[in-house]
Amino acid sequence: MTETQPPIRRGRGRRPAAEVREQVLAAAGELLLAEGMAGFTIEKVAARAGASRMTIYKWWPSRGALALDGYATKVRTVLEFPDTGDIEADLTAQVLAFTHLLTGTGAGKVIAELIGASQTDSELSSAFRERYSAPRRALAVEAMAKAIERGQLRDDIDPQVVVDQLWGACYHRLLIPDEPITDEFAKSLVHNVMLGIKR
Amino acid sequence: MTETQPPIRRGRGRRPAAEVREQVLAAAGELLLAEGMAGFTIEKVAARAGASRMTIYKWWPSRGALALDGYATKVRTVLEFPDTGDIEADLTAQVLAFTHLLTGTGAGKVIAELIGASQTDSELSSAFRERYSAPRRALAVEAMAKAIERGQLRDDIDPQVVVDQLWGACYHRLLIPDEPITDEFAKSLVHNVMLGIKR
Repeated sequence: MTETQPPIRRGRGRRPAAEVREQVLAAAGELLLAEGMAGFTIEKVAARAGASRMTIYKWWPSRGALALDGYATKVRTVLEFPDTGDIEADLTAQVLAFTHLLTGTGAGKVIAELIGASQTDSELSSAFRERYSAPRRALAVEAMAKAIERGQLRDDIDPQVVVDQLWGACYHRLLIPDEPITDEFAKSLVHNVMLGIKR
Repeated sequence: MTETQPPIRRGRGRRPAAEVREQVLAAAGELLLAEGMAGFTIEKVAARAGASRMTIYKWWPSRGALALDGYATKVRTVLEFPDTGDIEADLTAQVLAFTHLLTGTGAGKVIAELIGASQTDSELSSAFRERYSAPRRALAVEAMAKAIERGQLRDDIDPQVVVDQLWGACYHRLLIPDEPITDEFAKSLVHNVMLGIKR
C-alpha cells in the first residue's frame, strides 16, 4: 500500500496500483456484507472494482484471503482501538463497538459464516487468522500491556487470556446463540473481567 | 428413557426400547468421534447399533439431532459438573475437563465441525442448542447460583455472562486457533474470572 508507484494520471485508463488495491478491498468488503460467502466470487469483486481477475490473483492467493482482507478493511474504522488512557473505558468502548458490529450490521452473519466454513477449510482458517483475528488480537494485547505499565491492570495477568474472555465470550453468543448479544451483556462482561466475580 | 415397557427377554430377538435407544446413542457418539460429521449417516448408525432406520427416525427428526444426542451422551460422564461446595475448585475442574476433552480426544474436531456447519444449517443449529449447549449452560448456571447462595460469588453477577467468559473463551481458542488450549490457559481463565484483572 505504501509502495511507490510512478504517478499515472487518471483518465488515461490506468489507476495507480495502490488505488486499484483499495478499490478491490472496498468492493470485496461490500460484496461480502451484501451476499455472504455463498455469493462471494473473485469474478464479482473484479466487476465491482473494475479490475481484472489477473490483477486480483496477483495480490490474493485465494477467494478466502480476498474475503478476509475485504472484511478487515470494511470493519477497520469501526473496530479502531481507542486509547484514552483508561483501560476499562477503552475495553468497554471496544467490546460495545464489536457487539454493535455483530448485531447491527450484516457483519455478524458474515463473520459467523467465515468462522463456520473455516472449520473444514484450512486455507480459509489460515486467512482468517493471518488477515483478521491475529492482528486484532495483537491490538488488544498491546492496549492491555500499556495498561499494565500504567498500573491499571494486575501485572500477573496474561492479556492473551483476557482477549478470549472478552471477544471469545462475544463470539460464543454469536456462534451458539443460546443467549442474546446485548449492551447489558457487553458491559457485564467487561465489568466481570475487571472486578472478578469472587465475593 | 424412563417409560415403562413390558420386559421382553433378550434372545427372543427383541430388546427393550430403552436399551435400543441407548445402543443407538452410543453408536452415534462413536461414529461421530471416529468419522466426524462428514462420515456420519443414519444408515451407519443403524448398522452399528443393529437397529432399523425406521426406529431411529421414530426418535430423532434429523441426522443432526441424532449426532448431537450421540455426542452429548458420549461426553456426559467427562463433563459431569462436580459439586464439592467450592465453586473455584469446581469451575477449575470443569473447565479443565472440557479443555482436555477438546484437545485430547477427537471431540474437539467434531464439536468445531458441528458448530461450523450449524452456521449455515439452522436445523443443526437448533439441535446443537437444544440437545447440547443449552442443557450444559443450565448446569453451569445452576452451580453458580448455588455458589451465590453460599456467599462464594458476588450476588450482582449474571452467571449467564460468566458461562460465556469461561466456555466461550475455550471455544474461541478451538474455533479461531490463534493461541493454544493448555492447562495454563484453563487455570488462568478461571483465576481471572474469579479475581478480576484490575489492580
